[in-house]
Amino acid sequence: MNSISEYQEEFQSFLSQKIEVKDPKNLYEPIEYIMNLGGKRLRPVLVLVAADIFGNKSKEAMNAALAIEVFHNFSLVHDDIMDQASLRRGKPSVHKKWDLNTGILSGDAMLINAYQLFEHYEGQTFRELAQLFTRTAIQVCEGQQYDVDYENEIKIELADYLKMINYKTGVLVGAALEMGAIIGDASQKCRRSIYNYGSLIGKAFQLKDDYLDIFGEKEFFGKKIGGDIIENKKTFLYLKAFENISPADADALKHLYTLQPENPDQKIDTVRDIFSKSGAAEKTLAAIERYTEDAFEILGTMDIGKDEKDYLKNIGEMLMGRKV
Amino acid sequence: MNSISEYQEEFQSFLSQKIEVKDPKNLYEPIEYIMNLGGKRLRPVLVLVAADIFGNKSKEAMNAALAIEVFHNFSLVHDDIMDQASLRRGKPSVHKKWDLNTGILSGDAMLINAYQLFEHYEGQTFRELAQLFTRTAIQVCEGQQYDVDYENEIKIELADYLKMINYKTGVLVGAALEMGAIIGDASQKCRRSIYNYGSLIGKAFQLKDDYLDIFGEKEFFGKKIGGDIIENKKTFLYLKAFENISPADADALKHLYTLQPENPDQKIDTVRDIFSKSGAAEKTLAAIERYTEDAFEILGTMDIGKDEKDYLKNIGEMLMGRKV
Repeated sequence: MNSISEYQEEFQSFLSQKIEVKDPKNLYEPIEYIMNLGGKRLRPVLVLVAADIFGNKSKEAMNAALAIEVFHNFSLVHDDIMDQASLRRGKPSVHKKWDLNTGILSGDAMLINAYQLFEHYEGQTFRELAQLFTRTAIQVCEGQQYDVDYENEIKIELADYLKMINYKTGVLVGAALEMGAIIGDASQKCRRSIYNYGSLIGKAFQLKDDYLDIFGEKEFFGKKIGGDIIENKKTFLYLKAFENISPADADALKHLYTLQPENPDQKIDTVRDIFSKSGAAEKTLAAIERYTEDAFEILGTMDIGKDEKDYLKNIGEMLMGRKV
Repeated sequence: MNSISEYQEEFQSFLSQKIEVKDPKNLYEPIEYIMNLGGKRLRPVLVLVAADIFGNKSKEAMNAALAIEVFHNFSLVHDDIMDQASLRRGKPSVHKKWDLNTGILSGDAMLINAYQLFEHYEGQTFRELAQLFTRTAIQVCEGQQYDVDYENEIKIELADYLKMINYKTGVLVGAALEMGAIIGDASQKCRRSIYNYGSLIGKAFQLKDDYLDIFGEKEFFGKKIGGDIIENKKTFLYLKAFENISPADADALKHLYTLQPENPDQKIDTVRDIFSKSGAAEKTLAAIERYTEDAFEILGTMDIGKDEKDYLKNIGEMLMGRKV
């Protein structure tokens, strides 16, 4: 097994060779742009890791890893349009740097390009990768729709919120690992287990993101603190707060989530206090812990060596910020 | 072989069963809406026709036919956003009836759904359908990009225009027929021939559309006459006009294509006259005739029965409006 940073480097160099600007330039330049904005390349690395764990086949897994990264970037381009986000990784988003039409069309082309990358695989492998990809891609779209829907709904069930973050984040992490397992010729049981491991880690990671948005330290988190509060996003913390809240705080919280004050500092402080007082912060940390432990338990049942289990566990711990 | 209207009916009833609104409703309702706006169902019927011609397999071809129709409607939804078209088949377009985000996301889901429909086919058939679909879908995106690019370009080569309409219209007609041929177990040679037949007919059909936009009779054409002139679209007629034009007319034509007068009648009349005088109208009819004859010549070389050739020829003639 390579180190994570070795996998990142190998993937990056593969990506640089493969993503090229051809005609029509106005379609492919935005694709080259977004694909080279950087990022941790987490999902493609997971494809490579799983392919090596099950079959020492990370080299063969490069095209599937790229498909996952192209798809992830497709979803970023279209989501940035829907969220009216003008920045992505600190740079102009595609529809801002170019225009709406370019964002839509280059996104469409990326979705198709992702399928094209699976053509490097023969026979049943091609089919299994394409089917897993299709199922996952549909779920990601459905997750995005639920996310949009929930913005306008007053009452959201916790179970619905968890389904939404599973679709938006969990399933693609699970699918990345399972794709590596498919290429590495893993058993059906191992494929299912590693998918479940990935989707639990993905969900925990998303909850951690919700938590850090409010309780993180700006320098480490790298984003503006309180962004979800500013945008009135009903995250896990918001929903959990109502489980144990005074009527006065409940009214205050509901009211604050109808406002978008020019200076949000006071609002952020009040909401953060309510999230602490109500126990929502602690419950979020507990849920992250539970998902992570559930994921590690799945690892324990898998028919792979101890080193490989430790490797996967390390990735999970790294993502949860338990170690660096 | 069934009649065209029998194929249309069978396809329509299959579509009605298959396209259903599930959760999240805001994602699937727009899909159900656009898929039921009607239309001639030309492309899916071609899948069924080819499957029967080569292997009496139109029943097995239903899912591929639906994939082609779902993809076609995906491209309409996203194109309507890009063209800011508020009507589609006389009804509000998806992004008008709902909103921009719904148009983008339901379009994305349709593109993925199209791939999903190929999962009904086993082994090599699945792969061949998916690969042909991917190649075609990329070309349709590239064609749309060229179309957008050409709006802002002053000088367009005729060859580039023809490539654009082939990508926007020809390749999907070709792919529809070839998908039927794949399902009907046609030889590689027959697959290539019927694809080429379809793409030539598709191109001729698009040129006919350009021609009728200006010289059609409103009652028969069903669209507003002169729409391309109003929008300053540099069609085949526009490009051909400059091959044989007086300097005064050339200046007038270029100037008129920078204007968008509130009442366009005068502009339409002047442009129509120039298209007649310069011979562009006649040359367009000649090009339609040549593509159609080239297509019929390909039919002649194909290893299928006379009845089947006549059937395909009839479809071509019907589309060219030679008979009804």
